[in-house]
Amino acid sequence: MTYCVGLLLDEGLVMLSDTRTNAGVDDVATFKKMTVWQRPGDRVICLLTAGNLAVSQAVISMLNEPIEGPDAGEATGPTILTLPTMFEVARHVGDAVRAVHKRDGAALDGHGGGFNVALLLGGQIKGRRVRLFQIYAAGNFIEATDDTPFLQLGEHKYGKPILDRTVRKDMGLVDGLKVTLLSMDSTLRSNLSVGLPVDVLVYRKDQLAPSLERRIEGDDPYISGLRDRWSAALQNAFGEITPPPWIDT
Amino acid sequence: MTYCVGLLLDEGLVMLSDTRTNAGVDDVATFKKMTVWQRPGDRVICLLTAGNLAVSQAVISMLNEPIEGPDAGEATGPTILTLPTMFEVARHVGDAVRAVHKRDGAALDGHGGGFNVALLLGGQIKGRRVRLFQIYAAGNFIEATDDTPFLQLGEHKYGKPILDRTVRKDMGLVDGLKVTLLSMDSTLRSNLSVGLPVDVLVYRKDQLAPSLERRIEGDDPYISGLRDRWSAALQNAFGEITPPPWIDT
Repeated sequence: MTYCVGLLLDEGLVMLSDTRTNAGVDDVATFKKMTVWQRPGDRVICLLTAGNLAVSQAVISMLNEPIEGPDAGEATGPTILTLPTMFEVARHVGDAVRAVHKRDGAALDGHGGGFNVALLLGGQIKGRRVRLFQIYAAGNFIEATDDTPFLQLGEHKYGKPILDRTVRKDMGLVDGLKVTLLSMDSTLRSNLSVGLPVDVLVYRKDQLAPSLERRIEGDDPYISGLRDRWSAALQNAFGEITPPPWIDT
Repeated sequence: MTYCVGLLLDEGLVMLSDTRTNAGVDDVATFKKMTVWQRPGDRVICLLTAGNLAVSQAVISMLNEPIEGPDAGEATGPTILTLPTMFEVARHVGDAVRAVHKRDGAALDGHGGGFNVALLLGGQIKGRRVRLFQIYAAGNFIEATDDTPFLQLGEHKYGKPILDRTVRKDMGLVDGLKVTLLSMDSTLRSNLSVGLPVDVLVYRKDQLAPSLERRIEGDDPYISGLRDRWSAALQNAFGEITPPPWIDT
């Protein structure tokens, strides 16, 4: 399983992903689910992936092949580093998903695995606004809006109540990072198939370079204290709520 | 969908269930999912149901038939009102689930519906301790223990983080009721197929009669204020958490 979350705020973007992959509880590994492409001064693009690891790695490879190849830019047409808008980048990623499906879909179905992938794509290209998309296995996508400024992938339910209650478009990036970490913590606590370390990217609008791009390990002192501090704060909050009136205390 | 939760505390039992049933989003209805049997001074038994409504109603009817029939107690053997222990009551309910499966299981499978039911059974019989069980579609069951004093049915994920953080066996019944309402509120907010009103039962150990048995409507002033108060308390709690140190505020 996986937990990924992206926030599209007035100030910019917060992206966070866990790193656990598993094929059964006895086959657990760590894989980075965040890929960042950047050309400082021109663009920052961040992709988070969930689902079948072979599928999501194939999608990333297809996006990278024309960039990494010896004759990049010649035979292959536009790439994630040259496309002019985030909308076109989202379509480009969707096309890569469809290409992987065309090649691997039938074989996966034949083995009962099914073709299963979902992606969050966030970023900004110079002169354009910051955008955040969720791309489906069919290669189509939706976009975060003012009404719903966050998108989630994978095991999303445990971490949603805190997002519902605290995320507002006008919150700062640091608060945005804090709430995604708390949302991740609620998920980690309840689902063993989501695990530390986590990867985070914070992007401030119009900077065209990440403000923070970091792997946060399980023994990080901030993270290891977060759970206890949040539990204590929640218990205080709980204590502040007046008791139901229908029964004597 | 459904959300039900039961707490087994030192002071007694809190049981709460929503009332929404749906066969598609265009076919929504209200059904009570809580059934209470009592003989004051002898026993209080509360059953919450989730899953296929026809199955859970058939289970309840099978439990009630020998009680309500004109020759109750003669031909039918022990009933939920006469069995000597909660363990035997749990087996009796499991037997009713198996009997419904025997009659309806194949027909349901033939229509692609599947046999799908889950139950929470809580209560006390005079001279015995308070117990809380979760009964599965196979008729077998588990029991709440000191390690895990709460059990949930149905759409359980949204409402679990608050339970994880606040439920302790030694919390009072009123706090127990409050936390189940907050857990329900998180669920209501995120899943339209869980809906008000809710039914609650609070049972204080050794009283052998309910302390509270109540339907709480959506326009109840406590409930309608709870969401705002809890959102405000959570936002305060969120504000108390120190920001991550890796990025300038």
